[in-house]
Amino acid sequence: MNALTQLTAVQARAAIERGEVRVRELMEAYVQRVQAVNPRVNALVSTCLDQALEEAGRADAQRQAGVRQGPLFGLPVAHKDSYLVRGVRTTFGSEAFRDFVPTQDSAVVARQRAAGAIVLGKSNMPEFGAGSHTFNTLFGPTRNPYRLDVSAGGSSGGAAAALAAGMVALADGSDMGGSLRNPASFCNVVGLRPSLARVPMSPSSYGWNGVTVGGPMGRCVDDVALLFGVLAGSDPGDPLALPADPQDAERLPRRDPKGLRIAVSRDLGGLPVEPAVLAALGEGVAYLRDMGCIVEEAEPDFTEADEAFEILRALAFATNFGTLEPARMAQVKETVRWNIDVGLTQTGADVARAERIRSAMHARMRTLLETYDFLVAPVSQVVPFDVESEYPTRIADVDMPNYIAWMRSCSRLTMTGHPAISVPCAFTPDGLPVGLQIVGRYRRERELLAFARAFEEACPAARVRPGL
Amino acid sequence: MNALTQLTAVQARAAIERGEVRVRELMEAYVQRVQAVNPRVNALVSTCLDQALEEAGRADAQRQAGVRQGPLFGLPVAHKDSYLVRGVRTTFGSEAFRDFVPTQDSAVVARQRAAGAIVLGKSNMPEFGAGSHTFNTLFGPTRNPYRLDVSAGGSSGGAAAALAAGMVALADGSDMGGSLRNPASFCNVVGLRPSLARVPMSPSSYGWNGVTVGGPMGRCVDDVALLFGVLAGSDPGDPLALPADPQDAERLPRRDPKGLRIAVSRDLGGLPVEPAVLAALGEGVAYLRDMGCIVEEAEPDFTEADEAFEILRALAFATNFGTLEPARMAQVKETVRWNIDVGLTQTGADVARAERIRSAMHARMRTLLETYDFLVAPVSQVVPFDVESEYPTRIADVDMPNYIAWMRSCSRLTMTGHPAISVPCAFTPDGLPVGLQIVGRYRRERELLAFARAFEEACPAARVRPGL
Repeated sequence: MNALTQLTAVQARAAIERGEVRVRELMEAYVQRVQAVNPRVNALVSTCLDQALEEAGRADAQRQAGVRQGPLFGLPVAHKDSYLVRGVRTTFGSEAFRDFVPTQDSAVVARQRAAGAIVLGKSNMPEFGAGSHTFNTLFGPTRNPYRLDVSAGGSSGGAAAALAAGMVALADGSDMGGSLRNPASFCNVVGLRPSLARVPMSPSSYGWNGVTVGGPMGRCVDDVALLFGVLAGSDPGDPLALPADPQDAERLPRRDPKGLRIAVSRDLGGLPVEPAVLAALGEGVAYLRDMGCIVEEAEPDFTEADEAFEILRALAFATNFGTLEPARMAQVKETVRWNIDVGLTQTGADVARAERIRSAMHARMRTLLETYDFLVAPVSQVVPFDVESEYPTRIADVDMPNYIAWMRSCSRLTMTGHPAISVPCAFTPDGLPVGLQIVGRYRRERELLAFARAFEEACPAARVRPGL
Repeated sequence: MNALTQLTAVQARAAIERGEVRVRELMEAYVQRVQAVNPRVNALVSTCLDQALEEAGRADAQRQAGVRQGPLFGLPVAHKDSYLVRGVRTTFGSEAFRDFVPTQDSAVVARQRAAGAIVLGKSNMPEFGAGSHTFNTLFGPTRNPYRLDVSAGGSSGGAAAALAAGMVALADGSDMGGSLRNPASFCNVVGLRPSLARVPMSPSSYGWNGVTVGGPMGRCVDDVALLFGVLAGSDPGDPLALPADPQDAERLPRRDPKGLRIAVSRDLGGLPVEPAVLAALGEGVAYLRDMGCIVEEAEPDFTEADEAFEILRALAFATNFGTLEPARMAQVKETVRWNIDVGLTQTGADVARAERIRSAMHARMRTLLETYDFLVAPVSQVVPFDVESEYPTRIADVDMPNYIAWMRSCSRLTMTGHPAISVPCAFTPDGLPVGLQIVGRYRRERELLAFARAFEEACPAARVRPGL
């Protein structure tokens, strides 16, 4: 890895601002890295490397002309293949959209572009984001930069792998049942699932989708905070998105974690969790104690959270994809068609019940976080698994009923609506990364990020990069 | 009517602040008014007059002690019987909750209390807010202060009638299909349906309810702006509510309406509208032209809006009331039980379709309001009707299929999510009030209120009070 691609996004941005590094120079280092490792990792599936180099040259010219530089000025980024990028193929990981080239940007993309970011490519994802392992028939699986024979997680798996492998400085993602958190955990990077409505998701045919959120990924918490400050804010096309809080664009405050009260949940209401994940959580708890935190076992009641998640997830699939033309639908994989069908055929009573449950879950987590500052828990119930398998069928001697059941350590927290971050925590004896999930108070992302950075500083695993 | 009860809320507040009027004195005038006219109008159904007088006395003592006075300090208000008031009977207009006395305040109530308001009573509503005419078996119908033989509208009908009759200075309400607008129109007062998520609706078992909104009612636009500034803001119990915008608490700006572009819709996509309503709209348009506005016929495409509204309304009934204990459910009126049943038995495909439609409706209205500053339209398709009938069964020679079909001039606009206000516009030759509905840009309530005030100033009907 070139020294330039080892800089964090915050460092690279500062080096450009001080004139120590030209944007073109940075971009060339990243382009070389993409060319060197992407064929093995398969994280970026549609690239625009020449265009990025040209844009980099123009950025340098602008800088010399004294044009104001946005917060992401000159930084190479990847956009998840579910976000529209004007003029760049956008497939949603589906054969059904093999040749789709949008004529507009998603709000998430437009905000990064306006902040000065330069797109290097689209990041791989499972078809329509379904499942937490990144593979599809269009591009094949994304491999984990720490060990190429295991999964990078998903659905924002291409983003996490691209970051871990040093192919981009920042990447966006989205998260319904863990898609920003699980791949961050598998690839030893940082992924923040913000509170609902912090990041605009327009254009969308499901403006009132209260389950899927967009969010930032990066190689360290400061980078994630930088991108979050750019992504968060309202957009005319998103009826739910909150206005930007000017504080979000500022650098994270430093706060001594000593004396903070931390609730630990080992299994989020009795989920099966692999011993290696529990061992990593134990390491994480030890770091928290070293930091001076008061750590106690506590969790909200997760009864019925899975049922509510599955209903609202199916509703989202039905709303987003239920009207696909038959020719396209025929190209969609069976598990996704099953999810759409479930969404279309479930009853209003199911949806009403799910709505009541998630309101209750939101309240329960709020109540817990009146007593505790944060909740920590496993991100994934498993360590990164065989890249060729579709999903874990058995965890700690418990059979999984379907391809989404193994994601419950994330999806149960989705139902609370609260922000959750995955930060590097430990490695297994086999060298596989395991993240720690930290849940913070509703809409208090900066408080969560500041605490996550304190953890990151205490945790040696956060500084281990893949030897790719 | 005593001169004190003729002051607007803004005037009364200022008079208290300047020490010209004591709170106790104001409250006595209002209590006398309630005692004099409420038996005929039946707007307030549970009153706390003695308690209000005591609180007024304490307020005067606080004022003399130099305690800081909130924006509603000393003003008598009514809370809709769907909002919880600690220690005061709250029935939702239903026999099923005949004896329910909450132990907490709804956020809407708590915010008014914290701002210094003094509650005089609960305002009448149809059972569970179902329908735009205010009657129930518990309390009987609310009568229109302008003519006691006609409806006050609904579902916030008690609020509108109490305001028109001078029984309270301000009142809150809520609006799913027109419940803040229709009664304002019928009673010649002002009702604002804010954008979604401006006013917190906690506690609620349906936190992600994106259809029902709380909002302010008053006898003039300035009063409504005052109450809106108090109601708007986030609350920990409401996962959607937007943070308060500090501007909302300031006085409305003055802006010359000359040259504003106004879209007029006579029938919101071909709805039957009574000739007297169209005549009133014609008067309204003439005032707009006098104000120097550029008025053109234009409207968004309302195709499928009714279907989406009925599905999402039924979902809300199913979510809020689908788990009522059988003993309580048996006491609920048949039309409401039907609505709950529809909500429970409709399919996920129905809900998904409704979600897509409302996202499209939001976008269509946004697009229209890129060309026009405001849309104006009828509030109700009918003039106030016989207080003894349940709902209009026929409008302009068209039969209504059910008890909610006549509310479409409001509910179609609900589906856009945009803020809409009803302001006094004209009187029929029979002396019945008819309001004008004005729709503004999303989340731009102050812009809408400022324009509504300009209309109010141009409109003589706004200054006609009932001769009760």
